[in-house]
Amino acid sequence: MTNKMWGGRFSKATSELLEDLNASIKYDYRLAKYDIDVSIAHAMMLAKSGVIKNGECDQIIYGLKKIQEEIDNGDFEFKKKLEDIHMNIESRLTEIIGPVAGKLHTARSRNDQVATDIRLFLIEKIGYLLSLVTENQIALSQQALENFDTVMPGYTHLQIAQPITFGHHLLSYVELLNRDKLRLVDTLKRLNESPLGAAAMAGTSYPIDRKYSAKLLGFDRPMANSIDAVSSRDMLLETLSNIAILSVNLSRLAEEIILWVSAEFNFIKLPDSLTTGSSIMPQKRNPDGAEIIRSKAGRVIGSLNTLLVVMKGLPLTYNKDLQEDKEPLFDAIDTIELSLRVMCQMIADMKPNKEKMLSSAKNGFSIATDIADVLVQALNIPFRESHKIVGSIVSFAEVNNRSLDELLVEDYQKIDERITIELVNKISFDRIIHNKTSLGGTAPKNVKKEAEKWLKNL
Amino acid sequence: MTNKMWGGRFSKATSELLEDLNASIKYDYRLAKYDIDVSIAHAMMLAKSGVIKNGECDQIIYGLKKIQEEIDNGDFEFKKKLEDIHMNIESRLTEIIGPVAGKLHTARSRNDQVATDIRLFLIEKIGYLLSLVTENQIALSQQALENFDTVMPGYTHLQIAQPITFGHHLLSYVELLNRDKLRLVDTLKRLNESPLGAAAMAGTSYPIDRKYSAKLLGFDRPMANSIDAVSSRDMLLETLSNIAILSVNLSRLAEEIILWVSAEFNFIKLPDSLTTGSSIMPQKRNPDGAEIIRSKAGRVIGSLNTLLVVMKGLPLTYNKDLQEDKEPLFDAIDTIELSLRVMCQMIADMKPNKEKMLSSAKNGFSIATDIADVLVQALNIPFRESHKIVGSIVSFAEVNNRSLDELLVEDYQKIDERITIELVNKISFDRIIHNKTSLGGTAPKNVKKEAEKWLKNL
Amino acid sequence: MTNKMWGGRFSKATSELLEDLNASIKYDYRLAKYDIDVSIAHAMMLAKSGVIKNGECDQIIYGLKKIQEEIDNGDFEFKKKLEDIHMNIESRLTEIIGPVAGKLHTARSRNDQVATDIRLFLIEKIGYLLSLVTENQIALSQQALENFDTVMPGYTHLQIAQPITFGHHLLSYVELLNRDKLRLVDTLKRLNESPLGAAAMAGTSYPIDRKYSAKLLGFDRPMANSIDAVSSRDMLLETLSNIAILSVNLSRLAEEIILWVSAEFNFIKLPDSLTTGSSIMPQKRNPDGAEIIRSKAGRVIGSLNTLLVVMKGLPLTYNKDLQEDKEPLFDAIDTIELSLRVMCQMIADMKPNKEKMLSSAKNGFSIATDIADVLVQALNIPFRESHKIVGSIVSFAEVNNRSLDELLVEDYQKIDERITIELVNKISFDRIIHNKTSLGGTAPKNVKKEAEKWLKNL
Amino acid sequence: MTNKMWGGRFSKATSELLEDLNASIKYDYRLAKYDIDVSIAHAMMLAKSGVIKNGECDQIIYGLKKIQEEIDNGDFEFKKKLEDIHMNIESRLTEIIGPVAGKLHTARSRNDQVATDIRLFLIEKIGYLLSLVTENQIALSQQALENFDTVMPGYTHLQIAQPITFGHHLLSYVELLNRDKLRLVDTLKRLNESPLGAAAMAGTSYPIDRKYSAKLLGFDRPMANSIDAVSSRDMLLETLSNIAILSVNLSRLAEEIILWVSAEFNFIKLPDSLTTGSSIMPQKRNPDGAEIIRSKAGRVIGSLNTLLVVMKGLPLTYNKDLQEDKEPLFDAIDTIELSLRVMCQMIADMKPNKEKMLSSAKNGFSIATDIADVLVQALNIPFRESHKIVGSIVSFAEVNNRSLDELLVEDYQKIDERITIELVNKISFDRIIHNKTSLGGTAPKNVKKEAEKWLKNL
Repeated sequence: MTNKMWGGRFSKATSELLEDLNASIKYDYRLAKYDIDVSIAHAMMLAKSGVIKNGECDQIIYGLKKIQEEIDNGDFEFKKKLEDIHMNIESRLTEIIGPVAGKLHTARSRNDQVATDIRLFLIEKIGYLLSLVTENQIALSQQALENFDTVMPGYTHLQIAQPITFGHHLLSYVELLNRDKLRLVDTLKRLNESPLGAAAMAGTSYPIDRKYSAKLLGFDRPMANSIDAVSSRDMLLETLSNIAILSVNLSRLAEEIILWVSAEFNFIKLPDSLTTGSSIMPQKRNPDGAEIIRSKAGRVIGSLNTLLVVMKGLPLTYNKDLQEDKEPLFDAIDTIELSLRVMCQMIADMKPNKEKMLSSAKNGFSIATDIADVLVQALNIPFRESHKIVGSIVSFAEVNNRSLDELLVEDYQKIDERITIELVNKISFDRIIHNKTSLGGTAPKNVKKEAEKWLKNL
Repeated sequence: MTNKMWGGRFSKATSELLEDLNASIKYDYRLAKYDIDVSIAHAMMLAKSGVIKNGECDQIIYGLKKIQEEIDNGDFEFKKKLEDIHMNIESRLTEIIGPVAGKLHTARSRNDQVATDIRLFLIEKIGYLLSLVTENQIALSQQALENFDTVMPGYTHLQIAQPITFGHHLLSYVELLNRDKLRLVDTLKRLNESPLGAAAMAGTSYPIDRKYSAKLLGFDRPMANSIDAVSSRDMLLETLSNIAILSVNLSRLAEEIILWVSAEFNFIKLPDSLTTGSSIMPQKRNPDGAEIIRSKAGRVIGSLNTLLVVMKGLPLTYNKDLQEDKEPLFDAIDTIELSLRVMCQMIADMKPNKEKMLSSAKNGFSIATDIADVLVQALNIPFRESHKIVGSIVSFAEVNNRSLDELLVEDYQKIDERITIELVNKISFDRIIHNKTSLGGTAPKNVKKEAEKWLKNL
Repeated sequence: MTNKMWGGRFSKATSELLEDLNASIKYDYRLAKYDIDVSIAHAMMLAKSGVIKNGECDQIIYGLKKIQEEIDNGDFEFKKKLEDIHMNIESRLTEIIGPVAGKLHTARSRNDQVATDIRLFLIEKIGYLLSLVTENQIALSQQALENFDTVMPGYTHLQIAQPITFGHHLLSYVELLNRDKLRLVDTLKRLNESPLGAAAMAGTSYPIDRKYSAKLLGFDRPMANSIDAVSSRDMLLETLSNIAILSVNLSRLAEEIILWVSAEFNFIKLPDSLTTGSSIMPQKRNPDGAEIIRSKAGRVIGSLNTLLVVMKGLPLTYNKDLQEDKEPLFDAIDTIELSLRVMCQMIADMKPNKEKMLSSAKNGFSIATDIADVLVQALNIPFRESHKIVGSIVSFAEVNNRSLDELLVEDYQKIDERITIELVNKISFDRIIHNKTSLGGTAPKNVKKEAEKWLKNL
Repeated sequence: MTNKMWGGRFSKATSELLEDLNASIKYDYRLAKYDIDVSIAHAMMLAKSGVIKNGECDQIIYGLKKIQEEIDNGDFEFKKKLEDIHMNIESRLTEIIGPVAGKLHTARSRNDQVATDIRLFLIEKIGYLLSLVTENQIALSQQALENFDTVMPGYTHLQIAQPITFGHHLLSYVELLNRDKLRLVDTLKRLNESPLGAAAMAGTSYPIDRKYSAKLLGFDRPMANSIDAVSSRDMLLETLSNIAILSVNLSRLAEEIILWVSAEFNFIKLPDSLTTGSSIMPQKRNPDGAEIIRSKAGRVIGSLNTLLVVMKGLPLTYNKDLQEDKEPLFDAIDTIELSLRVMCQMIADMKPNKEKMLSSAKNGFSIATDIADVLVQALNIPFRESHKIVGSIVSFAEVNNRSLDELLVEDYQKIDERITIELVNKISFDRIIHNKTSLGGTAPKNVKKEAEKWLKNL
């Protein structure tokens, strides 16, 4: 006879190896708090439905709360022999309150129990992630407000394209992160249903009240199909997808920070507290935080991939494979939490080097497009024609090693004689940014308004 | 001088190789219809804003509609030399209406144009996917209704666990697919914003009206930040995630179908029209449809992975890498469409082998849990104790090569003498399923009601 | 001033958060043994080259060996403050032997150090993996030998196709696993080069002897380019790929075991020690080991994916992202080790149910192809014609609910009158398997020979 | 009766939908040439073994060669109705030579046939890939030789670390690519076995000579187990892994090229033929080739992932899922081919901007480590102490906005008074690089020798 709670029929002890493979307690101990809440709600429901007596329910709740205390105080010993968090708690409950503990597992199974635990865990975690994303948005909006008219080069293909403001650039991440939040909020709707009471998978003949236990735990409703309740993990995949997309979005900002602190760009400076040195090169100030956030996107993508692969082609209902859902999920959540927290500090503490940003923006012929626009309007020619004229102007400037600012009217007229002195005067670097007032455009007054709007709303 | 539309400054023809790598027309031709719609809306907006004249707008629209006709008639030649769908259409527009065509590209760029095209494409495609999922749900609900009391074994770990009804099992997929639909509907909210007018990325100094063009195209609103508008692909990643999860869900049903049509399970029969033969083995009836749906989940996961990797660490704003967004997206959509259509036929046409399902359900000691529940209630013992007693009963039956039905009262009493004849009579296979009336449980009356509810609502 | 070893220039303490993100000691402590070996070899090389004195070298080696002892005895405290294993060891070395410890870090950096450590780790681990795969091959070959003539159905599309022997089936995995071994052996060649002495990335002006330190550590040679030495991780990706393929191969056998132990197949029985029960269903004997091995393939694929994504688009030379190489690698190795060990036990202890395998093989018209072959030879007709005739025979049998064995000569002649009694007698189930004597074919005498060959060679 | 070749038993036409899902001819037409070679070898073997007559063999070969001609001339019509390349060719063969064509399919099946085709395809393709990688190595080595003493900053964390030579940097990729080649060469060994003659999976009772057909096709030997022969795809996974690693390696160089051509780095210039312009910004010179190569790594990783997922948990032997092996493989091969060809041109045609590289190298305190080394040797202090002194020197220079070159002896002595004028004179930027003569170090004479060695060997 083994000491396993399900071992009635087994004549030999489980192979120790299998035990290693099987035991989930080394990571699912994190579900303890939720497992206890679920058990309390289940006990209360069983009592309300008359399946157990009120006195039994009280005993069970007393025992469970004691266990919670033990855990909080670090007095609870999680045992690998007992496989998982459910068995660890139930076993301890039996020690505390005796055989009546056995009544708790009426009309439920570990299958619906763990599915309920993980949802409660995720609902809480997503709430926290949302607040961290908001903090990042606030930090971005504040930097954007401070830099609503700080000029920097806008890039396409990492080639200087058009001058923009640093604030405008930062606000684009506020928008992006906002969609990350909306995605998580939408996912919460699907997490907010209770699997509890689905039992092993078929439901039960006990007169249970699943709506009541769902309500006690704060869920919107019980899940409508007991098989679905124990065998689906799509809402976990959805959560992981959202986190993966969020981490990819962060990795883009991280990459930009790495570029910006390089000697060549030199657009921002990060405080010492957010960079590290080298064991061999005394002068280094490495943007480790940004590099790690960048690389962590790979890790989160890997975790999403893991669970997609695990779920692919898995027949219903519960399979042991589903146990493999927790580690990638926990890891992704821990990773994104840390990434969000570090990113927030970097955003808040970065100091823009405005002179360098501006001089870069003036380089690279960044106003060429705007010259083309001026020509379109002044000469009443199609954009395509204007585009060709400016192409030649740029070529000329490049060959003669001058910036577009430094060209003379005569130079312009060599390319196209319709260009007049009045027209050339219109092409002022300063006016260009301020004129981009189209909705969503980079004009400082736009940026200021948007940054203020975000700071008010967040 | 090259023949490229952006070639003003280039002295040498683009390397042919790079052209191969660069040309997207071989797949983005699928965006033609949306690109034309976008151009018409943009022209109307430019006219309304006074950037072009009404007459010019009319000419442009005339030309664009003519191009649409040519495409519909198969008369339009897509040219690799012209790189992408935007250049193909603009070039043809110039042929048709002359240089005024050049005015269309005022206050926009390919960056905002393609971002708008792809959204319109996705909004339409998701609408179609939703209808296909609904068809699958209807087919499942109908089979469920016809089989609301068809008994089959329910499995955990692919071991027979408890008897359930086939209808109950099928309805679990209706629930699962419904969340797939809700996810896609949520994604539509984020797709429903217009990037048009963001221009290359900085907005524009032309007095454009982005709200108007957004409205013309059916979007809820313009995107609020021009940089975000051209450089974000998170809503594509989100779409791909949803499709990947959907395909994983389908792969699970596909796996079950493959098992069910095997000689060993023999639970259902598929019509000849949905199976194929062997080039060497004349007797084969292969469930190719189900196998392909299973494998296609791998393909869709691969496509999601591709785009996540492409986006990871990409600095803003537009980079050529973003061109790589379309093929995985198109492929995933085509794949899931075909999978959904084949799956729907398989569901509708599968014939359950009720006798085999029932006899399997009676095997495997599937009622052991229910015996345990009966003992709990009759003997007023904790479930854990009852669980152990039944474990011993199962052991006894197994050793004596009998099913639980075939045990005699004496046999039971050898294990535990408290078990009486009345108690044994309570344990009837037929009553067990009918008693699982808990919310979401497998009792036929539950299943019938749920199936009818779904058929009414879908 | 911070207490960091590289903190000379830093005025503020590293943010605690960044420290969390940065510290790798929580997993790279596993490299301790290799790091010490590398340091000893480096010190000996420095002494031989005259960069440090022999006495200094002796002191350093003494200190390092003491640290190894402390670690072996569990007396060594790994400190997060000290970031990584290299700093932990160096800091302790300084405590033990004083400032001379600082001479150890001459002409090297953490960049070449960690690259060397990880290679030594992998070389040792791959050696162990190879032995585990061999054990699986031996177990498979033994089962194959015991079952060289155990008939089972061979499947294509999970439809019964042709009778094969169980031994033949098992030996196909021996072949597959052998290629897994060959892949790992090939990878060893690329791991067997020493990065040590590349320093931060540029090499050094100290007169070091990289060949000597490479030799001391058992490497074939030093790496030829110092930049390549510190920035490449392709051999880690290669190792992960090999492990991922191996885990996918194991997952296929795991899937088969899950099918085989199902009530419907009932082809094998696993010992109690390798299955687990249910907390609610007393009769269950779940093949958890096989399920976990199946799901772990998802995990390993995820780890491979993680590192591929991390490395993609990473500029040279060392970036902090490279730190993210260790966890997926360690996890993949631990996972595959456990999977291989559990699989080996399952293979060794599975008991085939020969009667059920045989009766299944006789079902499903599995000899149809062979009848076709007999007709080809007897009637001298093309295979395609014969294939059609047998298709009709199968149809007839199916409609009349008979197996092919049970058909009478008259039945055959209804389909094609050329079929004679002699011909029908040729079609004996027993002869069919024994006749498949083509190289690699399933004939028992082939299988026996192959199994014996493998057992001899492994 | 259907028109399918395997349709003998089927009463209804295959659903058109399933046909769409099933038909592989739209991509496996690429195997035509190999399929014909395989059929010719098979026919010759059948004749040699006496299974068919020599005359029949001649007819079959005649027909197959005619089909090859038709394909070469573009006269062959690939039909979706006929599903795949095998059926397309066999059907046409029947048209050309009549019913004797049916004898070709004796003792083989599509299962072993396609497994053989794909190997022949891969062996040829890998040969071509190897030559493309070699061309890239040659281009790199030539640039390296031309720039054996071109100084550039070496980066860690994208922070300037130490001066290196451009040639040294480029040669690191030659080393990396060489391991990519060695991996592919190792894979060839595993591809070089013939599955032909495994038939559906069990082998055959025909007296075939698999060694002979293997030899005719250039394989080293036949595969030893017929089940393994038709159901394994590990060597395809291995090929895909190698290509994925190669593409990741290329993406790193691509990323560097994108950085180098940015206005901020301005290290190299690419010819017009390898960059593209903008539809809206006339001045742009976008490194599209490099960007696409970078993004294509995502695509190849996705393809590898696809096939890993498809194969995971797939029971033996052949399943339709295996059909999904070809598209990701073909796509990965086409993608890497194009990437390698474009990369080679970029490498060959890039022009380094030596002045900018040098001035960057002098910035960023890149010689700090070397100063530390000088202090170690001159003052006979441990590296760790020297590291701290130099940290303070860097701090001083930074605060006073000077480069390390510009510091005076007095400045040094403020930090540490042991520093003398002789010592300061030792620290010359020029000498630093030339002194890095350790094996694999960046000293120009090392680089020249290595580049010459590679050019000689490649």
